[in-house]
Amino acid sequence: MNETRGSDPAVSCPTIDRARRVDLLRSQLQESEDGAWLFTDLVDIRWLTGFGGSNGWVVLRGDELVIGTDGRYGERARTESVGSGATVFAEQLRSRLHERLLEALRGASSVALDPAMTSHSEWSALAKELDLLPLASPVKKARRIKDAAELSRIEAAAGAADAALLEVEPMLLGAGDAPITEADVRNELEYRMRMHGADDRSYETIVATGPEHAARPHHEVSRRTIVDGDTVIVDVGALVDGYHSDMTRSYVIGEPTEQQREIYALVEVSHRAGIDALRAGSTAKEIDSACREVFDDAGYGDWFLHGTGHGVGLDIHEPPFHSQASDDLIEVGNVVTIEPGLYRGNFGGFRIEDLLVVTEQGSRVLTHTPQRPFPGHSQTTAPSDHPN
Amino acid sequence: MNETRGSDPAVSCPTIDRARRVDLLRSQLQESEDGAWLFTDLVDIRWLTGFGGSNGWVVLRGDELVIGTDGRYGERARTESVGSGATVFAEQLRSRLHERLLEALRGASSVALDPAMTSHSEWSALAKELDLLPLASPVKKARRIKDAAELSRIEAAAGAADAALLEVEPMLLGAGDAPITEADVRNELEYRMRMHGADDRSYETIVATGPEHAARPHHEVSRRTIVDGDTVIVDVGALVDGYHSDMTRSYVIGEPTEQQREIYALVEVSHRAGIDALRAGSTAKEIDSACREVFDDAGYGDWFLHGTGHGVGLDIHEPPFHSQASDDLIEVGNVVTIEPGLYRGNFGGFRIEDLLVVTEQGSRVLTHTPQRPFPGHSQTTAPSDHPN
Repeated sequence: MNETRGSDPAVSCPTIDRARRVDLLRSQLQESEDGAWLFTDLVDIRWLTGFGGSNGWVVLRGDELVIGTDGRYGERARTESVGSGATVFAEQLRSRLHERLLEALRGASSVALDPAMTSHSEWSALAKELDLLPLASPVKKARRIKDAAELSRIEAAAGAADAALLEVEPMLLGAGDAPITEADVRNELEYRMRMHGADDRSYETIVATGPEHAARPHHEVSRRTIVDGDTVIVDVGALVDGYHSDMTRSYVIGEPTEQQREIYALVEVSHRAGIDALRAGSTAKEIDSACREVFDDAGYGDWFLHGTGHGVGLDIHEPPFHSQASDDLIEVGNVVTIEPGLYRGNFGGFRIEDLLVVTEQGSRVLTHTPQRPFPGHSQTTAPSDHPN
Repeated sequence: MNETRGSDPAVSCPTIDRARRVDLLRSQLQESEDGAWLFTDLVDIRWLTGFGGSNGWVVLRGDELVIGTDGRYGERARTESVGSGATVFAEQLRSRLHERLLEALRGASSVALDPAMTSHSEWSALAKELDLLPLASPVKKARRIKDAAELSRIEAAAGAADAALLEVEPMLLGAGDAPITEADVRNELEYRMRMHGADDRSYETIVATGPEHAARPHHEVSRRTIVDGDTVIVDVGALVDGYHSDMTRSYVIGEPTEQQREIYALVEVSHRAGIDALRAGSTAKEIDSACREVFDDAGYGDWFLHGTGHGVGLDIHEPPFHSQASDDLIEVGNVVTIEPGLYRGNFGGFRIEDLLVVTEQGSRVLTHTPQRPFPGHSQTTAPSDHPN
């Protein structure tokens, strides 16, 4: 097999210890011995059992762990969940699968279920047959702290994105000479991340270029040809064994104007301030403030159109969320982005985003692509460890 | 620009008439003049307004159409929704966006909301401030009937998948000579669909090979090397301007065994029976029965692990659903799959899936990839129109 086609980085990552997770969750079950948890969120289900299909539920009780899914996924659920000790029921008929759920919950004094993860109609139907307890999923909370096995997957994903961007950057920066579109850049990045071992992209790659598209933080890639003078935002991540990465680099095509240099430098300072503020015990709001104050002080506060970052794991966006409305606390083991940006119609925009893990000592940057926004830019080199 | 990089097929498709959709929905509003609809499903929002971002709500009343979204999407929402006449509010703070929602709903006697599309916690929070009416989304229903503009996008998507598979099939069938993995086949298909004008894949491409993987209808692609004697299932679709396509072709690598020939022929007959049963006025359950009876009669009923098909549009899986549990009716303008399959551990599996539109006269096949499961297979050619 051709090596450039990409070997599987997950193979060399430590095995994820599902049994430990199941034990952890069990220890948090209701004190009464006959309480049960019903999990319906697919990402929670994957974290707990390993099963990654698109339909299913999981029941956790003191003495059992049951996965219910439809006929398409029986084999897959059995294989993927083997480390968790789960029993799998696969039923083609929805009515039969529902009976299996009631069987798995028989005798439970109450059934805890996350109301944010369950539709109102599903909740109402279940509430007719079960004594439902509306509780926030303990899996969601546990997922915030990444263990070494998870971290190795996130790092492999970040590495695949770094490697792909390294190859595609020259194409992008040569856009003045050989015509290339936003879609071309995206297509090459997504194809090459897989060549570098990614299972997939982490999310739809953003390539936002020029005075209008780059002014939109979440622009949808178009077939616009990139031209001299454009600002360019490339927001790209990879997926390895279900774990995401996330980074953004920004560029100017050709010689930057004074305004472009000035705005880019401001985003760089803000980004640096966010990284400096990231430490266990700080709040996600403080991190957002650190980035935001740089822009406010320079009079560019209204060019900043989003929060400063978010957690990354089995979901590309998960707590903690760095925003002014956030109550989230930063803990050791969190993997988060720091991603300030400035955007304006008729100008375009810049965003700089790194992925970091919060450590006992401070934080460690998982994104290794240098900032090369334009020729001659002297990077304020980000060291890979940030003692705080 | 290099033509092989793919021009945008949506450009040559008729414009989607959003104003007509808004009028249609308005005419279905509560008879009382001060009723309101709140839409929270992102696909419903895209169908109605054109806005395709990942966060937002829409309020529809007799005299207003309002989109609320966060700061990342303001510009994009305004551009994309221009044909719908919507007013857009973009707010960075969730609390401020919520105030905007209450403003947009001020004075409404009741607010209709789909309980299947809203989380229980969201519903409970809104119910404290508003008089909520639990009603199935009328957009979901309207979406079942595709107009000419939608059909042209779905056909362009199906065409991109056809063109990619045509290029990749020789690589796959030569797997005995030049080693190739499931992931390689997937990577090439997804890359090439874009070269043929797709914005993206429609869903994660399935390439399931050999006695175990092909025995799983929804196998997750691995790095398994494809070898002589394998059965192979390739389930691939493209995305054009938000619209999906869906098809499956199956193969044997090298010379097929008698059992492989027999099972493949059975799937072919079942697939043909499903197409023959598809007509306006039939039920989705009847279509499922037509396919299922072929397998049951041959003694292979328990090798068939899923329903026979589903609607396709802005969602890859949407009503009508062809299954024994379905109450759905088939109508002119439905775009649906017919996709029977047989699966067994130690054997592998086959599935054949076409995408069809239901017409006044019967149905029309939108999938144009011939069935070439192995050399010498004589296709029971599917004509492109099916008068029933």
